[in-house]
Amino acid sequence: MKTQFKEISGSIVAPQGFLASGVFCDIKRLGTGKGSNKGQKRDLALIVSEVPATVAGMFTTNQVCAAPVKVCIERVRKGIAQAVVVNSGNANACTGKQGLRDAREMTRLTASAVAANVSSRIPRSHERGYKLIAERILVGSTGRIGVTLPMANVKRGIIEAAKGLGNSKAHAAQAVEAIMTSDTRPKQIAVEFKLGGKTARIGGMCKGAGMIQPGMSATGERPAALHATMLCFITTDAAIEAKVLQASLQEAVAQSFNRITVDGDMSTNDTVLVLANGLARNAEFGVRSAEFKKFQGALNHVCLELAKMIVRDGEGVHRVVTVRVNGAKTVKDADAAARAVANSPLVKTSWHGGDPNWGRIICALGYSPANVVEHQVDIGYSAPGNKKILWSLKRGQPTKATFKQLCAAVAPKEFELHINLNLGKAGAVMYAADLTEEYVDFNKGDVGGDPAALGG
Amino acid sequence: MKTQFKEISGSIVAPQGFLASGVFCDIKRLGTGKGSNKGQKRDLALIVSEVPATVAGMFTTNQVCAAPVKVCIERVRKGIAQAVVVNSGNANACTGKQGLRDAREMTRLTASAVAANVSSRIPRSHERGYKLIAERILVGSTGRIGVTLPMANVKRGIIEAAKGLGNSKAHAAQAVEAIMTSDTRPKQIAVEFKLGGKTARIGGMCKGAGMIQPGMSATGERPAALHATMLCFITTDAAIEAKVLQASLQEAVAQSFNRITVDGDMSTNDTVLVLANGLARNAEFGVRSAEFKKFQGALNHVCLELAKMIVRDGEGVHRVVTVRVNGAKTVKDADAAARAVANSPLVKTSWHGGDPNWGRIICALGYSPANVVEHQVDIGYSAPGNKKILWSLKRGQPTKATFKQLCAAVAPKEFELHINLNLGKAGAVMYAADLTEEYVDFNKGDVGGDPAALGG
Repeated sequence: MKTQFKEISGSIVAPQGFLASGVFCDIKRLGTGKGSNKGQKRDLALIVSEVPATVAGMFTTNQVCAAPVKVCIERVRKGIAQAVVVNSGNANACTGKQGLRDAREMTRLTASAVAANVSSRIPRSHERGYKLIAERILVGSTGRIGVTLPMANVKRGIIEAAKGLGNSKAHAAQAVEAIMTSDTRPKQIAVEFKLGGKTARIGGMCKGAGMIQPGMSATGERPAALHATMLCFITTDAAIEAKVLQASLQEAVAQSFNRITVDGDMSTNDTVLVLANGLARNAEFGVRSAEFKKFQGALNHVCLELAKMIVRDGEGVHRVVTVRVNGAKTVKDADAAARAVANSPLVKTSWHGGDPNWGRIICALGYSPANVVEHQVDIGYSAPGNKKILWSLKRGQPTKATFKQLCAAVAPKEFELHINLNLGKAGAVMYAADLTEEYVDFNKGDVGGDPAALGG
Repeated sequence: MKTQFKEISGSIVAPQGFLASGVFCDIKRLGTGKGSNKGQKRDLALIVSEVPATVAGMFTTNQVCAAPVKVCIERVRKGIAQAVVVNSGNANACTGKQGLRDAREMTRLTASAVAANVSSRIPRSHERGYKLIAERILVGSTGRIGVTLPMANVKRGIIEAAKGLGNSKAHAAQAVEAIMTSDTRPKQIAVEFKLGGKTARIGGMCKGAGMIQPGMSATGERPAALHATMLCFITTDAAIEAKVLQASLQEAVAQSFNRITVDGDMSTNDTVLVLANGLARNAEFGVRSAEFKKFQGALNHVCLELAKMIVRDGEGVHRVVTVRVNGAKTVKDADAAARAVANSPLVKTSWHGGDPNWGRIICALGYSPANVVEHQVDIGYSAPGNKKILWSLKRGQPTKATFKQLCAAVAPKEFELHINLNLGKAGAVMYAADLTEEYVDFNKGDVGGDPAALGG
């Protein structure tokens, strides 16, 4: 299929009618600022649609899920939203009833601050639909677990952020900075495509780094696959019904965020939200339409590119490996085999070492829950997207590929690992990372005098 | 229950009628020796019973299992054995039909070499029972995967080892050295106890270090729990029927080797073997007898102490943590919760950092398959074996324990982590290790010019 979209700049404010901002309000309570962002990484972001939008969401399936996730799950069900408030530095997870009160208070504060600042910007034609109420505000948090939010700082931040809303690239850049934690670079993308004769856009931003192996579902019920703090916020000006948007997001997440792993840990806060405000003015479409396919193609691209950015920027990651399992008896087997390899510490350290060690790979396949027959297994390597595979093992036997050739295949910063179980026709892919000394060093923490050195 | 056994010296030759030896025969083909062990770590061990013994075994449930494991599974079923030949430096795994031929050849070579050297040592009273045949020889291997054994070296080694058999501590020390790979120290133990009025002894040696999360069963069928290259060889002079011995070993392994994890990787070669030669001359006993309980208590102690030695000497391990989960709805839940915590890279790195991070622990509990309710979870710490627990979390809420107190609790090289899910009455324990830079550095391998840098 010909690609029916093109990448454009502008991130989350590329689609019409979206505003963004990001400020520093000292959520980690470093005590270094009073709402000022001089020299400090921003820690509170707002994304606002000038008109009410349909909404869809996917959330962590961790049984211990953070207060903002609980609030979003309730609100996304109603299918309508208008703004998202997000903080970094504090996950508002394991914070009990106070956490829930704080998450809801963040949405109320956002509703009033935005209403006070944004109404003047709304084009006259949309005025009728404009009603910014707290129940239509979604909320996200990332950072430390088990510490309640400094609500005075949060309030100051929200008020400042609402004053600063705008739709320039600089505004989007503020917002993405504000959601980063251990991320070393911002992760954002936008695409443009034709939808029912109109020009539609999708923009997205996300954060990742550690605790990355999402296993998200729409409702908190567990999907077949398991296991990031990852937050992703997607905007689009396509007109799309909430149910159709949810179906499309589930498909896109299944092929992207739910297929990545940095360390196999699943966070309490994983969240993907999409707001669709309809300002592209296309006619709405159903899930079986040609238009749906176009929308799905564009959304899949946005989600997959953002997901890959998360793996590449994972904590201490040196190498990114696409693990492709084919020839499995069932999709469940293919998924289990790919996850076992992608999460094996011995396989991951061998990737770090540039070691084409098929023994560790076949060992991980063997202990996975998938059906594996040693003398059927093929293992090989290719450059990303290159169909020419250098096989190291065929039907369980080493090939004539030389050690030097195999080392060269696993030397690049990104490569693909191909596994054929030769037992059936099912396949699965995982986007995985190596395991490095830096990952350990980063995560062993800095406990010196920190009264709340908690992950998230 | 009063302890009914005492620890003694002597390792695997402490029980009557067992001989051992260990030699260097250059199985890694370093090219530095010709059967000489001058300055080289030994790499081939023999353990021989002067009379035929009953035998029991537990083996890896990895679907990709090594040739020596396949041979042992066949032979242990027959219930009788007399010797074990073990090499390090090469796992004889993923070596196809040649691997199976080599494993069987090792047993034939051992049968003839031992028969040529040992018969003169057998006390007259046992002579009648003595018949050393290849089918009664068991075999174990550990080391690289995917490379066939250098059988000329192995043969030389077996002949030299058979000549060197003896029952002194020095002989046992040779044998345990020969099975070590990345182990930094030998792991051995022996106990003595009364059985039916007679003095019986159990001795054991093992190796571990990496690829450690055994999930062994008697037949290769998968147990409920999953997932070392670990090899363990146990000798006893107790008289015990093969079926009773197998029942006892399964119980002991379930509570020891199957409850440890270094990195969550399960090897292709995990093996535990027990030979019982009856020379203590106790009356045989059934599984419901008081004598069985005594034997079980002694065997449990041997297996648990050896298992803990494996964790303490795991690759790069700085800290050993006993993870005790209680209050689970089911044993399966307790096991799943304990394994999720014990294998979480973020929890393991926090242990390395001396960080009492309950956020990561509750996060791992939440994504485990076990039923977990955030506001029911208790998390605390104690010194090993000490019942005084310092709770950091009670019913999902941080306690008044200070950060300094909690840091002190997780500072020792060994501590216990107590988790109460408060949902039921089931419990499980895992003996786990931290994740360190040294683990990564060790396992990223040394690919410089090595034509077969494969794990195992």
